[in-house]
Amino acid sequence: MPGRLGEFERIERFFKPLSASLAGALELTDDAGVIAPAAGQDIAVTSDALVEGVHYLPGERPDRLARKALRVNLSDLAAMGARPLAYTLAIALPPAIGDDWLAAFAGGLADDQRRFGIGLLGGDSVSTKGPVVLCITAIGTVARGRELRRAGAGAGDRIYVSGTLGDGALGLRAARGELAGLPPADAEALAARYHLPEPRLALGHALAGVATAAIDISDGLVGDLGHV
Amino acid sequence: MPGRLGEFERIERFFKPLSASLAGALELTDDAGVIAPAAGQDIAVTSDALVEGVHYLPGERPDRLARKALRVNLSDLAAMGARPLAYTLAIALPPAIGDDWLAAFAGGLADDQRRFGIGLLGGDSVSTKGPVVLCITAIGTVARGRELRRAGAGAGDRIYVSGTLGDGALGLRAARGELAGLPPADAEALAARYHLPEPRLALGHALAGVATAAIDISDGLVGDLGHV
Repeated sequence: MPGRLGEFERIERFFKPLSASLAGALELTDDAGVIAPAAGQDIAVTSDALVEGVHYLPGERPDRLARKALRVNLSDLAAMGARPLAYTLAIALPPAIGDDWLAAFAGGLADDQRRFGIGLLGGDSVSTKGPVVLCITAIGTVARGRELRRAGAGAGDRIYVSGTLGDGALGLRAARGELAGLPPADAEALAARYHLPEPRLALGHALAGVATAAIDISDGLVGDLGHV
Repeated sequence: MPGRLGEFERIERFFKPLSASLAGALELTDDAGVIAPAAGQDIAVTSDALVEGVHYLPGERPDRLARKALRVNLSDLAAMGARPLAYTLAIALPPAIGDDWLAAFAGGLADDQRRFGIGLLGGDSVSTKGPVVLCITAIGTVARGRELRRAGAGAGDRIYVSGTLGDGALGLRAARGELAGLPPADAEALAARYHLPEPRLALGHALAGVATAAIDISDGLVGDLGHV
């Protein structure tokens, strides 16, 4: 059994420091966090869950996993043209997860919080006998009426894609070591795209009020264009 | 193997109707939901996770489970003096969960949505090989600066408790059938308190700006008073 603090101590040690940049997080000691939007700002909210063995490979490095979990949510905000502000984290952990794992996980969150200018607003840490389940709810702001909706597209609109299509799927194969024929540097770059997607936040924000529609591609270009 | 629709069909059938009352949910077809707060309103956010076998008994009725999952979050909003508006649901389901279970679960959500005047803003439905994990993020509004914080309490303040302390713990024992000595009607009433807590929303909202502090009691009166 790895080293394990109690739930309150874990929150105090690993999660409370992640809330320090947000006064409204109330140091994670209250029943809810509070956000004070500026006049004329809408709030965009998205929730995604990651399950060990389904959305990431068992044994994944906890720091990288933390950043991936954040980024899939930030990509959703980017696709709405929203600027990320805060997130909540509800995490179900099996007994095998020790404090070392959790310290590395919190370290990954801290890195990406700085990178994207966000803070931890609240959350929950619970036990499970099953695989790790991470639920992140990301909260962003967008000027009223400027959000990029999928439904905004019309016939005759041009379609633009940012990034390189297919890198995620190839990246998974590279991460599994299935692309032995590739030069190691290429395989590594592809695996990095799978482990650590890059949310197009600046692009999404710049497009708010300009593009007619946007979507975060996850089911392939043709599948997701059907969703616009 | 019970009847199972695909993920898109499940969202379309069971979850999309729950979003109908919120225009900002964008019919659950977009990357994020959008909330448009009135000027001078703050947004309160709380996330809680429930794990099968940890937070509720395996085999629990899905409609009651759905309402319990909502209500533990609404209780947190009530303790902040916030008025509930919307929620997101991220749910991890094992293969044994069929569409009948999900239909009943969505029915329970629909009942409590009407009762509390809220709607489903967004979420995620994923697979797991472990127990069911439910993550709900509840979002409410409170007039700026009027939220009830734990830290507002001072020496000399009077302490008020709503409801009956200990009913939750006794209710768990009743739900397990451990209170055979009680009259069946009493055991049933106690079990109902465990299965279906009553968020003190009207009370919390009335106290916003009046009480100095509030907390949702979950660790016993003495334990939680230490948190104020």
